Amino acid sequence: MNERLTKLTNWLKQEQIDAAFITLPDNIFYLSGFQSNPHERLLGLAVFPEQEPFLICPSMEVNDAKNSGWKYEVIGYSDTERPWDFVEERVKARIKNIQKWAVEKEHLNVERYEELLSRFPGAIYKSAEAILNELRMIKDQEEIALLRKACELADFAVQVGVHEIKEGKTELDIIAAIEYEVKKKGVSGMSFDTMVLTGANAASPHGTPGNTKIQKGDFVLFDLGVIYEGYCSDITRTVAYGDINDEQEKIYRTVLEAEETAVNATRPGVLAKDLDSIARNIIHQAGYGDYFPHRLGHGLGISVHEYPSMTATNELELKPGMVFTIEPGIYVPGVAGVRIEDDVLVTDGGVEVLTKFPKSLKL
Amino acid sequence: MNERLTKLTNWLKQEQIDAAFITLPDNIFYLSGFQSNPHERLLGLAVFPEQEPFLICPSMEVNDAKNSGWKYEVIGYSDTERPWDFVEERVKARIKNIQKWAVEKEHLNVERYEELLSRFPGAIYKSAEAILNELRMIKDQEEIALLRKACELADFAVQVGVHEIKEGKTELDIIAAIEYEVKKKGVSGMSFDTMVLTGANAASPHGTPGNTKIQKGDFVLFDLGVIYEGYCSDITRTVAYGDINDEQEKIYRTVLEAEETAVNATRPGVLAKDLDSIARNIIHQAGYGDYFPHRLGHGLGISVHEYPSMTATNELELKPGMVFTIEPGIYVPGVAGVRIEDDVLVTDGGVEVLTKFPKSLKL
Repeated sequence: MNERLTKLTNWLKQEQIDAAFITLPDNIFYLSGFQSNPHERLLGLAVFPEQEPFLICPSMEVNDAKNSGWKYEVIGYSDTERPWDFVEERVKARIKNIQKWAVEKEHLNVERYEELLSRFPGAIYKSAEAILNELRMIKDQEEIALLRKACELADFAVQVGVHEIKEGKTELDIIAAIEYEVKKKGVSGMSFDTMVLTGANAASPHGTPGNTKIQKGDFVLFDLGVIYEGYCSDITRTVAYGDINDEQEKIYRTVLEAEETAVNATRPGVLAKDLDSIARNIIHQAGYGDYFPHRLGHGLGISVHEYPSMTATNELELKPGMVFTIEPGIYVPGVAGVRIEDDVLVTDGGVEVLTKFPKSLKL
Repeated sequence: MNERLTKLTNWLKQEQIDAAFITLPDNIFYLSGFQSNPHERLLGLAVFPEQEPFLICPSMEVNDAKNSGWKYEVIGYSDTERPWDFVEERVKARIKNIQKWAVEKEHLNVERYEELLSRFPGAIYKSAEAILNELRMIKDQEEIALLRKACELADFAVQVGVHEIKEGKTELDIIAAIEYEVKKKGVSGMSFDTMVLTGANAASPHGTPGNTKIQKGDFVLFDLGVIYEGYCSDITRTVAYGDINDEQEKIYRTVLEAEETAVNATRPGVLAKDLDSIARNIIHQAGYGDYFPHRLGHGLGISVHEYPSMTATNELELKPGMVFTIEPGIYVPGVAGVRIEDDVLVTDGGVEVLTKFPKSLKL
């Protein structure tokens, strides 16, 4: 059994939980090595304190599951079979009377929960996220190597984008060029829809790219990431095209100072909320407190947004092996939108910044 | 109130349900016009039989929600506030004692369900999918126009890919070229990760594209779609590169016959399962029954996989306005993988095929 599964079974024993039923594809990939998007079909991994685990998946994916290195039972079902009948039968063959389940309460839907409630009456349900978030939060050496590579490719993607900036090009033109070059490098997918925003579009923290053309005197904001062997990167850079005015420059300098100060404060023992406050105070003191409407960042790994959330209220203490984003921003409608984001790894001695593209204001 | 919301409120009245709480982004887009991916944050739409509906979203998206045309209350919350407190307060201000909720049982997670259970004790929960699937299944004229355009762009994308086929090019090379040209046309995103598969890779119905090079004598399979103004297309074409052997050709002809026969049988009054059987029987009679391991197709619209599922057991009767995929395939390891997929609209008189790229065997 791999180390990750062993840690999960140890937790089940310690908590006296009879079985975990895992359905989030990212958690299944983490625990089993099998990566799959089942859409609305059931993909499940059942893990027990002592008995052998099993995977259940659409029959057409059984070979892929086996080829991914999964050594235990794999149950396939066709579109006309009832997968929950198989789950019930295989679970009861291992443990007659389940009294305590662990399920992903942030993922399992009510329909599937009701299947469990009716097939295993009287059981109680604990959150599996408690252990899965904790395990996934601390990256091992193999994961760190993949994240380094994903970040290197994100740096490359921003570089491509910056080189494409030219008066009259649209946001979508530049996205097309970035993704073309990145995919030519062998990347199978982006972490999320690539964002290139300029002018008024950049002044919304969640703008949608379109046919807006780049003009001199505007910022161009890149927010993108790549998936490399299952691991995500996430970088934001904002660059000025042509001459910008004093207020735009002040906004840029403030975000940069907030970002770099938070990055440099990152080390074991610091609390997540302290990092958020460090950045937020700088922005507040510059008079833009009302224009930084989101948290400082989020965990990063197999999912592009994962535990922990780097908010002003999170008391979590940083530990070596954690990887998360630091991404303060200021968005003043009609003036400018600037965000700068790095992916950082907490090390024994402090911090390693995984994204390395320069943070220069001008092209 | 728009027609879609009116239909939902009418259903609530008819079923004597006090309130619906909708959290699936695609359903919120359908009902409100506001399109957003909130990731792990709460995005919710509360709808009542008589009272005014409200939206709740992260505060940084409030302006986007208003700009999307939503005319009713929008509640924003920051990352340090508790959005469920707002939900509870606003719902209770409208209806003191909720006795019956409608929620998306296929989407709402256990954690959020437990929030509702504890804040509105004693209520019972009905599936909101019952009505939402039925509403979304029948497309209106505006939706059909968008789907036609999304399919036209999918045809274009396949054309780009077919023109790129050349000995030595990799699957990822061709994907990069397709997405580049499509995004240059103003498309903001693909419906799902574009698949170009060749050789042994194509013999898995869910293969992953990589650095496999195209060789003469192989099939090249394209499965892709684009999102156009929120609506998805989904097309598959398989083409032979160079000379293929007799068994490969037989497989191709069988899939094509199965696909075209099912398309031509599509009209109001036919059952979903009948279409599946028509295609499956042709494949079975050709001796490949064991190599068609998936359903015939799936509904298509705002989601790339939506209700209904076109399976061998679905008794649903086809009605004008339904849009779904027809996509039989045969996957024989070591020999060939062929799938052909069209998006079809059920019309009063029969069927309109929305994807039009030719289904020729050879380049």
